[in-house]
Amino acid sequence: MAEQKSYHMSPEDFRRHGREVIDWIADYHENVARYPVLSRARPGEIGDSLGDEVPEDGEDFTAILQDATERILPGMTHWQSPGFHAYFPSNASGPAILGELLSAGLGVQGMLWSTGPACTEVETRVLDMLADLLGLPEAYRSTGSGGGVIQDSASSAVLCALIAARERDSGLRTNRAGCDGTQVAYCSTQAHSSLEKAMGVAGLGRANLRQIAVNERFALDPARLAAQIKADRAGGLRPIFACATLGTTSSNAIDPIAAIGRICRDEGLWFHVDAAMSGTAAICPEHRHLHDGIEYSDSYCFNPHKWMFTNFDCSCFWVADRAALIGALSILPEYLMNEATRSGAVFDYRDWQVPLGRRFRALKLWFVLRYYGVEGLRHHIRRHIELARRLVGWIEADHHFEIVAPTPLNLVCFRHLGSDELNERIMNEINGGGKIFLTHTRLNGRFVLRLCVGQSHTEAEHVERAWELIVDAAQGIRERGM
Amino acid sequence: MAEQKSYHMSPEDFRRHGREVIDWIADYHENVARYPVLSRARPGEIGDSLGDEVPEDGEDFTAILQDATERILPGMTHWQSPGFHAYFPSNASGPAILGELLSAGLGVQGMLWSTGPACTEVETRVLDMLADLLGLPEAYRSTGSGGGVIQDSASSAVLCALIAARERDSGLRTNRAGCDGTQVAYCSTQAHSSLEKAMGVAGLGRANLRQIAVNERFALDPARLAAQIKADRAGGLRPIFACATLGTTSSNAIDPIAAIGRICRDEGLWFHVDAAMSGTAAICPEHRHLHDGIEYSDSYCFNPHKWMFTNFDCSCFWVADRAALIGALSILPEYLMNEATRSGAVFDYRDWQVPLGRRFRALKLWFVLRYYGVEGLRHHIRRHIELARRLVGWIEADHHFEIVAPTPLNLVCFRHLGSDELNERIMNEINGGGKIFLTHTRLNGRFVLRLCVGQSHTEAEHVERAWELIVDAAQGIRERGM
Repeated sequence: MAEQKSYHMSPEDFRRHGREVIDWIADYHENVARYPVLSRARPGEIGDSLGDEVPEDGEDFTAILQDATERILPGMTHWQSPGFHAYFPSNASGPAILGELLSAGLGVQGMLWSTGPACTEVETRVLDMLADLLGLPEAYRSTGSGGGVIQDSASSAVLCALIAARERDSGLRTNRAGCDGTQVAYCSTQAHSSLEKAMGVAGLGRANLRQIAVNERFALDPARLAAQIKADRAGGLRPIFACATLGTTSSNAIDPIAAIGRICRDEGLWFHVDAAMSGTAAICPEHRHLHDGIEYSDSYCFNPHKWMFTNFDCSCFWVADRAALIGALSILPEYLMNEATRSGAVFDYRDWQVPLGRRFRALKLWFVLRYYGVEGLRHHIRRHIELARRLVGWIEADHHFEIVAPTPLNLVCFRHLGSDELNERIMNEINGGGKIFLTHTRLNGRFVLRLCVGQSHTEAEHVERAWELIVDAAQGIRERGM
Repeated sequence: MAEQKSYHMSPEDFRRHGREVIDWIADYHENVARYPVLSRARPGEIGDSLGDEVPEDGEDFTAILQDATERILPGMTHWQSPGFHAYFPSNASGPAILGELLSAGLGVQGMLWSTGPACTEVETRVLDMLADLLGLPEAYRSTGSGGGVIQDSASSAVLCALIAARERDSGLRTNRAGCDGTQVAYCSTQAHSSLEKAMGVAGLGRANLRQIAVNERFALDPARLAAQIKADRAGGLRPIFACATLGTTSSNAIDPIAAIGRICRDEGLWFHVDAAMSGTAAICPEHRHLHDGIEYSDSYCFNPHKWMFTNFDCSCFWVADRAALIGALSILPEYLMNEATRSGAVFDYRDWQVPLGRRFRALKLWFVLRYYGVEGLRHHIRRHIELARRLVGWIEADHHFEIVAPTPLNLVCFRHLGSDELNERIMNEINGGGKIFLTHTRLNGRFVLRLCVGQSHTEAEHVERAWELIVDAAQGIRERGM
């Protein structure tokens, strides 16, 4: 073939443009607090600026990067801003970003052990180390009957747990012949919507998810769970699965996992614990009690991509009986057969998840754990919790506001006395101001403001300012007569 | 709070360490051809080198990177090596790696339009542009009734398509009440294993996937498909879905999509087209005929992370009727409610996929399209196909070997005359040599070697050398008397 233009980026250009992007990110993080946290873009505005077709000829990378800056930044909601208090955090850090970069550079595909032994083994060992750090049961270690795997999200983790439960119950009959609408699962009314979605995806039926009533702390009531299981059995149904939440999305409620776990053990249900954000706190000895009763669980999930400085996606999922998970998800076509798989001496992680392909996500998690060390991680978690507690104190001291749910960790749920409309107006005015971003939920039918402290660079000054903005917005609205 | 050590990586350190990682990757790509393509690590070897616990104190990043190099490189199978001819490629490129880096630096969570308008709108528009470039039907555009979305893999795409089909058939009854084991789906015996896996995941039952026999070119036989659908209906079952493959994993067979599509239209089946690797070829006018009949399809998927220089994960998935997909996957809890969602003027991509969270994957794809331009992409695709054809010529000219399947594009399926054991021994000897890596499949019950040309930096010299290695290995084994 004749010598031709390669079109590829040369190693020299990669070094040069790579530095441009690294500097771009450093600049971005230095300046991120200046941007309006919630994007002010109107629907279609960003898209309309992009043009309609792929260019015929390639463009210079520096020009592309410049163009991206101009078109994309106005359409960003800045999750890495210290003023981001909405939803749950999705915090990032230098070592995680560089771990993701290294993973992209290696471009390894970890679907099988043999297609990337390091990709598999770093993941297995890092999750073993994390299981120790979190105080998870011995069964969750790869050296025991179980093991850990990184999923893209807690939604995918709960789906995998649900499918493993479904197949354990049916002896793989549902995998072969399909569901029959008789298997039922349990969670609280406050559990994450991903479980209801997973019931639909898995063919079990959303209506077969029993959402058990909660107590005054928004935690699942075990007595009602036990009663519902008995009622369902009496109705000819097959209870297969229960999910407890450590830190619900709505209000950070902590379900009583020991009590729920004993019921699951007695009734033969698969017991999944969803600690997506709040599990991180268990790395601190003073919060380890969150996991009291975890020995009853069959699976557990928490997301370093929420509150442990590791870029999305990185959701850590453990099972106590890996054979149950693998049995439910394994398929082995000839073109993926290899010596290592045949030997049984390795994990092929494609059998631990829904997709086949997977990238080297353990690298960024390993970098974060080593760069921060246990003490560095604990320092930040403790600081966030302390800042949330201070905010609770200020709210309690202000007679215009009330705390409406317990604050076990870093999420504060509160409202201004008065109507839902007033609270929604306060929220919209604050978010429109651009300095912070917070979101809402409904508790006991009322519109409630949520302020989560979990961004990597959120410091005391940011939480103090957030409270000032809330107080000022409320006062302004009161004075304008609503 | 008292002034304390922050533990975070400072912007200055990020710039410094970022350059280290960029240089590391540039060095790696310059040297990747020197490493054994298939890792020689033994099971447990990499893991055992990692230590048992998270360090108490943080470590220096440069030391971590150095340590990673020493421990990880021996455990890599080098997918970015020009000697990688196994499975399908998972090729990468400079602009894609830097796009992934920028996405990690922005750390935006694109689950809803409002949580990252640019993240959503760049994706929508880039997939519209790609639909044009591939010659996909007007219905697949966001400006029509459908639209595109990036999934992590073709496995997840086919799962979403299958669930949309399931719900279209049942009028959302299965989503609510669960499956009943009566819905059946169709593909060829050569379709990817992900469809069988998806049948299990979705509660439809793997046994309800009908794997239709193929013709002598390993392509689905439409007459047998039509007959099976009629037989299933006569048996009281509900045919809901068929998948055609453009480029099967095993042998790159091309199913006749126009004929299959007409059957699906007449029978009311959802018609999904899986073009995971081979769809990329349709960007070349001379290969556009691959898509003849695509107007009958309800959904289509191809993976830029296979053969279009875009790092994993980036699987592009289009549907002609987005309402069917969204209806099957949507859940809207209060804490995700917002003005933009309520307005109906935006896409919330969480309703187009199984997980809730999502990162800004469109950025790397946008960078690749702009950096290469249409001509740059076509240049490489054409070069790979040309190299595969040359290899076919050499194989055909060697009386020891035979071609065992058509070579429509870049995958060559061949075998040495003689036993399966001989062919497996040739493969193992070549892979053990470390210069190239190829894998096998079975066709008509025989062990077959597969050599795929699709790595970003695979040039004529690499394919020439691969053929020499194969010839030499075969000759050596023959001379040693097997």
